Amino acid sequence: MEIEHPPLNHERIVPKAERRGLVLVHTGDGKGKSTAAFGLALRAHGRGKAVRIYQFMKVPSARFGEHRVFEQLGVPVIGLGDGFSWKSKDLEHSAQLARDGWAQAEATIRAGEHFMVVLDEIMYPLRYGWLPLESVLACLRERPSHVNVVLTGRGAPAELVELADTVTEMTLVKHHYQAGVPAQRGIED
Amino acid sequence: MEIEHPPLNHERIVPKAERRGLVLVHTGDGKGKSTAAFGLALRAHGRGKAVRIYQFMKVPSARFGEHRVFEQLGVPVIGLGDGFSWKSKDLEHSAQLARDGWAQAEATIRAGEHFMVVLDEIMYPLRYGWLPLESVLACLRERPSHVNVVLTGRGAPAELVELADTVTEMTLVKHHYQAGVPAQRGIED
Repeated sequence: MEIEHPPLNHERIVPKAERRGLVLVHTGDGKGKSTAAFGLALRAHGRGKAVRIYQFMKVPSARFGEHRVFEQLGVPVIGLGDGFSWKSKDLEHSAQLARDGWAQAEATIRAGEHFMVVLDEIMYPLRYGWLPLESVLACLRERPSHVNVVLTGRGAPAELVELADTVTEMTLVKHHYQAGVPAQRGIED
Repeated sequence: MEIEHPPLNHERIVPKAERRGLVLVHTGDGKGKSTAAFGLALRAHGRGKAVRIYQFMKVPSARFGEHRVFEQLGVPVIGLGDGFSWKSKDLEHSAQLARDGWAQAEATIRAGEHFMVVLDEIMYPLRYGWLPLESVLACLRERPSHVNVVLTGRGAPAELVELADTVTEMTLVKHHYQAGVPAQRGIED
């Protein structure tokens, strides 16, 4: 496992404009939150950095376009969900999967072996109350300082926005669904 | 060259919910406009679709993380700019490059051999008056209907928003530059 930037142990002599890991949040009701996270992962991978992607709302067997390319590139994409929807019969099972998934992701972040860890759609289990927000915030605060973490999903909690370095809100101006155009293979999946 | 979806020549019998190419716009002052476009290109490539990326504000020799990965994947990324900045000494040269670049991109869109064509940061030459908006709108209107076009950049013109199928505004909520943290290799380039 490669360590891209060793943790800084000499903070008093490091200038303010240091390079360090960031917490990046993509939120809002618009498109592009996860897609931009994949773009960040692509860019970091292109710089030779170790990247891992956790997807809280995708099943492990998801084979969308991005899964196929990341597999080809050797970037692990780990589906943690069970295809949850509001019609799910077993929400407690979904909640348990989210907690188990978070335990994996937290261990990866704290281990410091990755330049970037993506927590795709983690806002959903946070909003549903399946994951304690404080546990996520504590992990981000206490992580090795070289680790970049990207969190996506609607409705980012205010405490997370406060902690984050960069927060982008993707706002829906218009969407082709509204005009009766269905999901397009290669665009939405 | 592969043609993913032949142009539809039987519009009257196609149900409204057809699959067809979309015009997607990423605009606003926030991060993620280009990055999400790269994510879309990645996804389409992962579905075996032909993709081409034109970058209006990048030099042909740009070697950011995304260029390295797309090269590895065999997706052409074509820098059309000259590293323009407001300090440029020769804006007419920049304008000519933009026009030449647009001629290339327009020919690619109209040829219909690509599932997706990305026009990254095309809003800049449009805003600077280097490209006539009507020429871009006409190309989008008249393109083969299976071609998806993704346009990025701040300040999308109202006529383009009107024509587009899906428009996302990326809004800056907060940014690490504001806290004195500089651009990070593997994150911003």
